[in-house]
Amino acid sequence: MSAQRVGILHPGDMGVSIALSALDTGCEVYWASEGRRPQSQQRAAEAGLRDAGTVARLCELCPVLVSVCPPEFAWDVARRVIATGYKGAFADINALAPEEKIAMAREMIAHGIRYADGGIIGLPSRTPGETTVFLSGPAADETAVCFAKGAIGARVMGPEPGRASALKILFAAYNKGMIALQTELYAAAQRYGVFDELQGQFVHRGLSLEKIVLQITRAAPKAWRWEPEMHQIATALEKVGMPGDFHQGAAEIYRRLAGMKDCSKLTLEQVLAELQRNSPPSE
Amino acid sequence: MSAQRVGILHPGDMGVSIALSALDTGCEVYWASEGRRPQSQQRAAEAGLRDAGTVARLCELCPVLVSVCPPEFAWDVARRVIATGYKGAFADINALAPEEKIAMAREMIAHGIRYADGGIIGLPSRTPGETTVFLSGPAADETAVCFAKGAIGARVMGPEPGRASALKILFAAYNKGMIALQTELYAAAQRYGVFDELQGQFVHRGLSLEKIVLQITRAAPKAWRWEPEMHQIATALEKVGMPGDFHQGAAEIYRRLAGMKDCSKLTLEQVLAELQRNSPPSE
Repeated sequence: MSAQRVGILHPGDMGVSIALSALDTGCEVYWASEGRRPQSQQRAAEAGLRDAGTVARLCELCPVLVSVCPPEFAWDVARRVIATGYKGAFADINALAPEEKIAMAREMIAHGIRYADGGIIGLPSRTPGETTVFLSGPAADETAVCFAKGAIGARVMGPEPGRASALKILFAAYNKGMIALQTELYAAAQRYGVFDELQGQFVHRGLSLEKIVLQITRAAPKAWRWEPEMHQIATALEKVGMPGDFHQGAAEIYRRLAGMKDCSKLTLEQVLAELQRNSPPSE
Repeated sequence: MSAQRVGILHPGDMGVSIALSALDTGCEVYWASEGRRPQSQQRAAEAGLRDAGTVARLCELCPVLVSVCPPEFAWDVARRVIATGYKGAFADINALAPEEKIAMAREMIAHGIRYADGGIIGLPSRTPGETTVFLSGPAADETAVCFAKGAIGARVMGPEPGRASALKILFAAYNKGMIALQTELYAAAQRYGVFDELQGQFVHRGLSLEKIVLQITRAAPKAWRWEPEMHQIATALEKVGMPGDFHQGAAEIYRRLAGMKDCSKLTLEQVLAELQRNSPPSE
């Protein structure tokens, strides 16, 4: 029996992490170099991925495809796959709202493709237990087996698309919402001249200042892509009758930090200065 | 030398807790029964407070007054004191925005009253170290000495009114904002059918489910008064150029729970059911 073949569209940092998990499980992992940057080619080659050349050829070769890309390209990727006449399993593990995944499932299934909705909780990782892909939908089981022995495990949440991305989005709503709130309150405390006293209260209530600083300084370089994610979360919450305001506020904080895209080794002082610089003056 | 006389306007649960701290420090503590409910009279008598009868007489007797009342009555209390011709120290330790405290300070000082802005962090308590009154303003020092030996301690934050209430409001923004966010996400997780999985992620990331449940079930009976506090916090954040959206969202969550006023022994299920009942249906 030959190894299961899995196609990854497209191997960025997270995509490579996912691909390595499939390789460790014994799968043959393919990608399509067509139209990708030389940087991506090098990364894919180093990870041991096989190049199918085109998306059309990738669809011929692989009975399981995993879409992992910036969320704004998720629909393009899905429609390019449909256009090839593909009839295998397709897992979209991008950060879209549950409603969008359900709509995508409907479109895929209408074209004879087995669909899995997926949500990743965690960062690209080679350490088992840190990061999990949650999957729900008709193709959840057959996708999950491709990752059974890798560092990034897969957990099946039943046959209904939407549940995996609901979990992902609600956990992100907590985690990224919290970080935005703490960033905002630190910046407001600077303006009110009570920064040290607020930190004192956080310590008194058992919070770790080191952890808060790490969270804020690691979030700022990703703020440019967390801003649209916060808007998506707000929409998803409003769909079930909950206020979207929290995450509109979080989106605004990340919008003001978007200029720190891909900056490394930031300090808390730098992040708060950037936030103050992009905030309107006090009344 | 006779004991320092302190007047409390008006001794509710928190006011009594503050009064006991002054009694333990060796002060004589007065209140004014005029127009108060029989319930308040009993509570004040049991705590060992002396009844000055009227606010006018309280102002004659006490060189230090502390206003601790629902925030919507804080200005009334301040103006009734001004109207008596009082010339002592007046500490307003109610949850008003810093800008309001600064305005109140200006009015008091114009009438020859020494003013302290105050903010309480913590609940009514007889355990030292749990709850602190932060004070800032010209009368901060002379007010703080009245609580030096009690369970509820006082910390002076300098001579500028506004700093103490800024600290209080920013800590409440964190604490009560967080609880509202967690409540909202639990309710949304119910709607999306991923409640157990979201709890699983909270546990996996080191959060205590017991603590979350305690926070939510203890918050619901107070939601009716946290709603206006959240609006105040939103305004205070906007004044320094930060988005108020988070706390508008928090206000909306507490608004939907306001009907649980003073309910005791609530379960998480009851609180979430109340929130769902007062939320619009899914789209």
